[in-house]
Amino acid sequence: MKLASLKTGGRDGTLVVVSADLSRCVTVPHIAATLQQALERWSVCSTALAQVYADLQAGHCVQAFAMDVHQLASPLPRSFQFLDGSVYLHHMEKARKARGVAMPPNYKTEPLMYQGLSHAFDGPTDPMRLPSDDLEIDYEAEIAVVVDDVPMGVRVEDASAHIKLVMLLNDYTLRALTKTELPKGFGFLQAKPTSAFSPVAVTLDELGDAWDGNKLSLPLISAINGQRMGQPNAGKDMFFNYPQLIAHAARTRALCAGTIIGAGTVTNQDESGGFGCIAEARIHQELEHGEASMPWMRFGDIVRIEMLDAQGVSIFGAIEQAIAKV
Amino acid sequence: MKLASLKTGGRDGTLVVVSADLSRCVTVPHIAATLQQALERWSVCSTALAQVYADLQAGHCVQAFAMDVHQLASPLPRSFQFLDGSVYLHHMEKARKARGVAMPPNYKTEPLMYQGLSHAFDGPTDPMRLPSDDLEIDYEAEIAVVVDDVPMGVRVEDASAHIKLVMLLNDYTLRALTKTELPKGFGFLQAKPTSAFSPVAVTLDELGDAWDGNKLSLPLISAINGQRMGQPNAGKDMFFNYPQLIAHAARTRALCAGTIIGAGTVTNQDESGGFGCIAEARIHQELEHGEASMPWMRFGDIVRIEMLDAQGVSIFGAIEQAIAKV
Repeated sequence: MKLASLKTGGRDGTLVVVSADLSRCVTVPHIAATLQQALERWSVCSTALAQVYADLQAGHCVQAFAMDVHQLASPLPRSFQFLDGSVYLHHMEKARKARGVAMPPNYKTEPLMYQGLSHAFDGPTDPMRLPSDDLEIDYEAEIAVVVDDVPMGVRVEDASAHIKLVMLLNDYTLRALTKTELPKGFGFLQAKPTSAFSPVAVTLDELGDAWDGNKLSLPLISAINGQRMGQPNAGKDMFFNYPQLIAHAARTRALCAGTIIGAGTVTNQDESGGFGCIAEARIHQELEHGEASMPWMRFGDIVRIEMLDAQGVSIFGAIEQAIAKV
Repeated sequence: MKLASLKTGGRDGTLVVVSADLSRCVTVPHIAATLQQALERWSVCSTALAQVYADLQAGHCVQAFAMDVHQLASPLPRSFQFLDGSVYLHHMEKARKARGVAMPPNYKTEPLMYQGLSHAFDGPTDPMRLPSDDLEIDYEAEIAVVVDDVPMGVRVEDASAHIKLVMLLNDYTLRALTKTELPKGFGFLQAKPTSAFSPVAVTLDELGDAWDGNKLSLPLISAINGQRMGQPNAGKDMFFNYPQLIAHAARTRALCAGTIIGAGTVTNQDESGGFGCIAEARIHQELEHGEASMPWMRFGDIVRIEMLDAQGVSIFGAIEQAIAKV
């Protein structure tokens, strides 16, 4: 099934079940007011939500109404925990090369992962508001999963069963600020403003064979101002998969229902599929042409991220945001 | 006034107003079910809560009952954002010395700050559960403030007005894991498990002259297994104050109501007041005696953190936790 949140109803929005083609939706107050509530009681709620989805698909939901993507908040308008990895090592290798920094120790034995802002995500078509556009604004096209309650010390082989939903993620990075922030060792703070997710979050059965229990193998398309940036395959060159990320995160903490786990910018060793952020494109240009001509994003620029199924149909809907002044 | 949360009522607990002497409390469902709800509507709720507090102090609350600290969750059992700084530079200097790492660049021009686990805090007397006690378990005695909604780009001079509550904080650190985690540059993840806060959070008027609008100037007492570790003064040697920390955090993000801002382990240049964590005590021993004899904490060890007012009365109640196996 596909789930989203209307902006109405407070800081957690209002949960809606969405039709597979993203055209219609229906609220489910008798099951859960918000997606966070549904995730906290997933074993009960998911069955009831699936029944609504079946009714909606069959055209039996009389209360259903046309879905307007501009009325949508993030599927989880806010979350208690967002942990983002960096497991497409080609991205890290290029990003570090750009900063002139060596690869971190142990990067092939344990994943890099930071805790990011999660208290207020942008809606999928909301402006991305920043104080200035001279901070080297970059997007990062990613895939994120949402888990239910995960016990501390979960084993990799048990972690996959905790993955309940998948979303697209635009993890903005202010590259100018990473240069001073990362050497301090405390991770990203000012360099990672809020993020945006796809209009809908989907259950694993919506992904068919493209989801193998550990990762999602489909191209992730991104564009700036209508210019295609790339469509690297999210299932390729993933050095650590989602169950491994979850087990890493849960070594010394339990994870709460609604925790979002990202895997970092999708990128492939074979660069013929293009890029999932500006930084990689710029480094490619430097290496090929001696200088980076692609600009960072400025106010008014529009970034779009989408994933199509094998039939060319949008699975999650598109993240499409303009950069704007706060 | 003083506020706390009972463990009953779900993941956000049940808000109670607590008497100044911490002996009695009363639920306030007609005002707010949870502290998070009260913070999100603070301008309305705080007046009503203050009236209940006045009635409770005057002995006019017929529904009040005896407060049992063991029934308390953290004042905020969970929060959407916990940002912890490290502004007592003497701590950082000693901690880095212990790891054999140089001080970070810019450490005197902008504060170090990381985003920490906030989805499930331990209650003030709950066991601190960890998978192993060979991870060099350390406590860190800190002061944290709680803010209401703070706009992106808030100026330092406007930030103080957003501070609504103050709490004591035990920010556990697994020193064995910092050695591999911090060099990766993505901040703390496995090295910072959950934290605990004092039984009650207090409004600024409870602190009298000890709160000057920017910092709290009283000794912060900590002990392990009844052995006093130290009582450094939290108002001394604070290189960046709370308004500066808030403005730093809010440069590229708004902060939501209920965001917790810590300032790092309280420590003084003058070490005669002792220490606020084991790491500093061990380095002191190394420098004085050539080796560190104080052990890290093990299962069964008990850590206690408390702050007394000028009359020797406990302001926040005590954090008192045993380290235990998960």
